[in-house]
Amino acid sequence: MAEYHKMKAVVFDGSLRVVDDYPTLDLRPGWARIHIRTAGICKTDMELMKGYREFKGVPGHEFIGVVEACEQKEWIGKKVVGEINAACGQCEWCQKGLGRHCPAATTLGIFKHDGCMADYCILPAGNLMEIPADVSDDRAIFTEPLSAACEIIEQLPMQGSERAVVLGDGRLGILCAWALSTVLSDVTIAGHHPEKLKIAAWRHIQTIDDSAAVRPGADIVVDATGSGSGMTDAMRLCRPRGTIVLKTTVVCQGDINLAPVVINEISILGSRCGRFRDGLKMLRDFPDMPVERLITARYPLAEAVSAFERAARPDALKVLLQINP
Amino acid sequence: MAEYHKMKAVVFDGSLRVVDDYPTLDLRPGWARIHIRTAGICKTDMELMKGYREFKGVPGHEFIGVVEACEQKEWIGKKVVGEINAACGQCEWCQKGLGRHCPAATTLGIFKHDGCMADYCILPAGNLMEIPADVSDDRAIFTEPLSAACEIIEQLPMQGSERAVVLGDGRLGILCAWALSTVLSDVTIAGHHPEKLKIAAWRHIQTIDDSAAVRPGADIVVDATGSGSGMTDAMRLCRPRGTIVLKTTVVCQGDINLAPVVINEISILGSRCGRFRDGLKMLRDFPDMPVERLITARYPLAEAVSAFERAARPDALKVLLQINP
Repeated sequence: MAEYHKMKAVVFDGSLRVVDDYPTLDLRPGWARIHIRTAGICKTDMELMKGYREFKGVPGHEFIGVVEACEQKEWIGKKVVGEINAACGQCEWCQKGLGRHCPAATTLGIFKHDGCMADYCILPAGNLMEIPADVSDDRAIFTEPLSAACEIIEQLPMQGSERAVVLGDGRLGILCAWALSTVLSDVTIAGHHPEKLKIAAWRHIQTIDDSAAVRPGADIVVDATGSGSGMTDAMRLCRPRGTIVLKTTVVCQGDINLAPVVINEISILGSRCGRFRDGLKMLRDFPDMPVERLITARYPLAEAVSAFERAARPDALKVLLQINP
Repeated sequence: MAEYHKMKAVVFDGSLRVVDDYPTLDLRPGWARIHIRTAGICKTDMELMKGYREFKGVPGHEFIGVVEACEQKEWIGKKVVGEINAACGQCEWCQKGLGRHCPAATTLGIFKHDGCMADYCILPAGNLMEIPADVSDDRAIFTEPLSAACEIIEQLPMQGSERAVVLGDGRLGILCAWALSTVLSDVTIAGHHPEKLKIAAWRHIQTIDDSAAVRPGADIVVDATGSGSGMTDAMRLCRPRGTIVLKTTVVCQGDINLAPVVINEISILGSRCGRFRDGLKMLRDFPDMPVERLITARYPLAEAVSAFERAARPDALKVLLQINP
């Protein structure tokens, strides 16, 4: 398998660059090697560049690719997305089906596992989901972030009559608002970017360009701001005994006075990735959910540094790397 | 009712002093005037002295007293404790029986309502609970903080097999550990005061004088440290998808990195006061719960300033003001 020994890859080791001789990871028993077609740049990738989790290696965890090698031959040739946490499969969490909390897990492109901004990546075959024929590549690339939005619905029992406010008009905020609007009739998204809020408008979602103008007393407030001030806003907008869903993994340091959480007996729910089957199902069930609107720009792999610069601009939502299109 | 026009009271208006000519509050329809026997000094009182809620007036919200005046004559002469939030009785929260979250509520000795460190205080008659004959004064004075500890059990469904860790060996931390030990078999309390941890030992509770030595992976972590570092410790000790109960109303400002809450999908549950009936019931159901151990010292009202100084010392648990014993 000499052709797999070296590959093109984006590499981060304190600075970001593209190389064409990165060693391909060996295939492990039960794992699959995926030939990457497209990778997405995510906010988490930007955080890694700032030192988050002390990551070094190939970044990238949002991808579409085709399985090239796998012990389970039925996977070969399938177009797939893949869940990013590679669990040990043995511990109590894995046994409970909560492998994404496995303490020994690695995470594609985030933690101890080279990512998908390369010709190839490897993942356990059990992490893969075939992309249905009726979901286009431009929709399927949103499976990971949309699944993270769906996770809110999985974690938090809702009646349908709740009023939800999403803080943050970035890509994750918009997807959270869209996902919530499939189960709730009163959803507001608040942000500071008129052009993003215009993109966020779908169904009955209200868009507000100033969180100070949002009516307090919301049953559910999702903090997807990616900033420390989000929590303070969320505490102000959440009703007593309401729920704040914390979606922001940014290292948000600074003064946070949590006294309102105690006084108003608010629940704060940390919410991370979701199950890909939920994201893919939502993409199929809601073919009019305009995820394609979120694609800001496309770059070839060789221009990955420019792509990251583009993704860092305030107006960017989703920048794609077209690796082997 | 001239005899009620002036009374002895502890007054805070930037500094703390005792006066003997404080105006007695007029009785309102449906309210009761209570002649105070004993008042407790609480951590919240110490916070008020530092500017919390910009309080001015008579502090104090933990008391035992005898009803002296009330439209509902059956209350007169009864020895009572009283819930501290005086709700409006009209709003949607009050209608749901959650008057303690009423947005128009005042709070005895804490917010827009003169407290109980005086000869008299007034409260809605509906807030009062008669102290059962088999609960001594030295036990009944803990109704309010013990109810706040019971609130955890009311808010959080538990199976009995959960492992709970309480951070903080102050009075609230100890009461939380005791309350949890009535429903859970694996309860640890961690603090920094060997003499307080000795007091905390009851039933099967494990005491540890260094939170760094507590085994991580707890199902439930209660932060009763009263300090900003409590949350960081709690996030480290809580298992993925576990619950952190936030009991600390201290203004805890400083760097808090909430990323572990998202990554581990932790729920943070703000928990405040509880229903007095739960605290009184626990005092009766567990006559061996050694709440009397928490009494550090007793002072007459005239020596309230010394009492507050005593309560501020690190070894203090509960300092009582004996007002009309």
